[in-house]
Amino acid sequence: MTASGALFLVGGKDGRNADRRLLGRFVELCGGSSARVLVITTACSEPKRHRQEYAKAFSKSGARGVSICHPARRHDADDPALLSALDRAGGVYFTGGGQVKLVTTIGDTQFSARLRERHRQGLPVGGTSAGASALSAVMIAGGRQKRAARWSSVELATGLGLLPGVIVDQHFRQRNRIGRLLAAVIRNPAMLGFGIDEATAVEIDAAGRVAVLGAGALTVVDGSSLVGASLADAAKQDAPLSFAEIRLHRLGRGWRYDLTTRQAGPPGRQV
Amino acid sequence: MTASGALFLVGGKDGRNADRRLLGRFVELCGGSSARVLVITTACSEPKRHRQEYAKAFSKSGARGVSICHPARRHDADDPALLSALDRAGGVYFTGGGQVKLVTTIGDTQFSARLRERHRQGLPVGGTSAGASALSAVMIAGGRQKRAARWSSVELATGLGLLPGVIVDQHFRQRNRIGRLLAAVIRNPAMLGFGIDEATAVEIDAAGRVAVLGAGALTVVDGSSLVGASLADAAKQDAPLSFAEIRLHRLGRGWRYDLTTRQAGPPGRQV
Repeated sequence: MTASGALFLVGGKDGRNADRRLLGRFVELCGGSSARVLVITTACSEPKRHRQEYAKAFSKSGARGVSICHPARRHDADDPALLSALDRAGGVYFTGGGQVKLVTTIGDTQFSARLRERHRQGLPVGGTSAGASALSAVMIAGGRQKRAARWSSVELATGLGLLPGVIVDQHFRQRNRIGRLLAAVIRNPAMLGFGIDEATAVEIDAAGRVAVLGAGALTVVDGSSLVGASLADAAKQDAPLSFAEIRLHRLGRGWRYDLTTRQAGPPGRQV
Repeated sequence: MTASGALFLVGGKDGRNADRRLLGRFVELCGGSSARVLVITTACSEPKRHRQEYAKAFSKSGARGVSICHPARRHDADDPALLSALDRAGGVYFTGGGQVKLVTTIGDTQFSARLRERHRQGLPVGGTSAGASALSAVMIAGGRQKRAARWSSVELATGLGLLPGVIVDQHFRQRNRIGRLLAAVIRNPAMLGFGIDEATAVEIDAAGRVAVLGAGALTVVDGSSLVGASLADAAKQDAPLSFAEIRLHRLGRGWRYDLTTRQAGPPGRQV
């Protein structure tokens, strides 16, 4: 289900100004002491702050080199200098902010096409918060904070397409987003929903094996067996959605999940 | 799974001072215009208010007779007059308040023994809020409002035992109780979790067929396929619980559920 490079999705609060453990793991994936990390800050409205924080954090995490780029308009994402930085990078990391800003700026540009190509060839790609959400093909663009899932609980958009079968949400437990992730999956039952807590990372290898790292958990919403009523009616009425047969997992540190078999396993057990 | 009388569980806000539709349905179950309803207000701290409201509500709902009793201490629940009222009743309804107060007052008394016996013989029994929670065998006594399920999210106690395989929670969506119901099921994976929204009723017939009525939904948490890590560790650390393979349903008005097969079906389809 995934391409050949590792994916590394953080649910926000990636510890860049704290213990940097999650970023350290991403540097390992990118080649450790030989790693050159390209950081894209487009999602962020304060790119200067992100520039300073991530330059320091990735240097202290053992990367050999860090490039921070902020393509702010679409034509910036076709800039040969940026594409050249991408070609030299051993890994790409997207910072947080607004995922809609991120995908509307770099989506469907030369940068995003080259990123997908290099990722297919093995380039690790990571992101936190908006930068994690943007990596999926169907992306959560926003939503209303409602306890019960409704049609309108979630707005969907096109993401960067590096993780085709999964819809990613972040700050998950902290912002109580189970309703909008359920709504996203009910509206797209072939997609898995991944809800990633803050200070928590999900690492996905080329074979689609998922490992959970950090302080929180990965919530998985699996709608492959979904029994539902008419979605057309649900959209019209915008009442709380009824559904049956959602498979729900909440996987803390050390748990594993397999995107191909859709099985979860506790720490120490193979899936 | 259920005894021979119908069960009628309301998730709070039973409409007694409003449209009385849910109470009207309970009166139908009890025999309609020949129904004599016994109302037990023990859970309530303002029994006088409940006495007035329910006497009026059940009369206006078409019951032939309404008796309101408030056994306040355990020996009140062995009173021959109360047992005689139970013998004459065509249905028993428990009002809301505190379920711990209710079960510690009438649990394991002559009244509760006779109630179970008459229910086995066909007596309909209903309740709202605390009065619904108290009918299960393993009862939610309380809990902390936490978004992520933890060991300590829920306190359990012994209920009246009319619905042996189900743990009932109420005010479910309104008080965002998914975390504590998940915790209850993870700690008792053989039990089903029923979370009932306000203004919503769940009707269970002698064959264990469940119908959903009213404005909200029944949330079902099914842990029969649960994959979990060590609960002993979870209890000690009280960290957010990890788990896999919870089956989750959210069933609005007209949906059906079968306690025996554990299958849900949308309106109009048999399960």
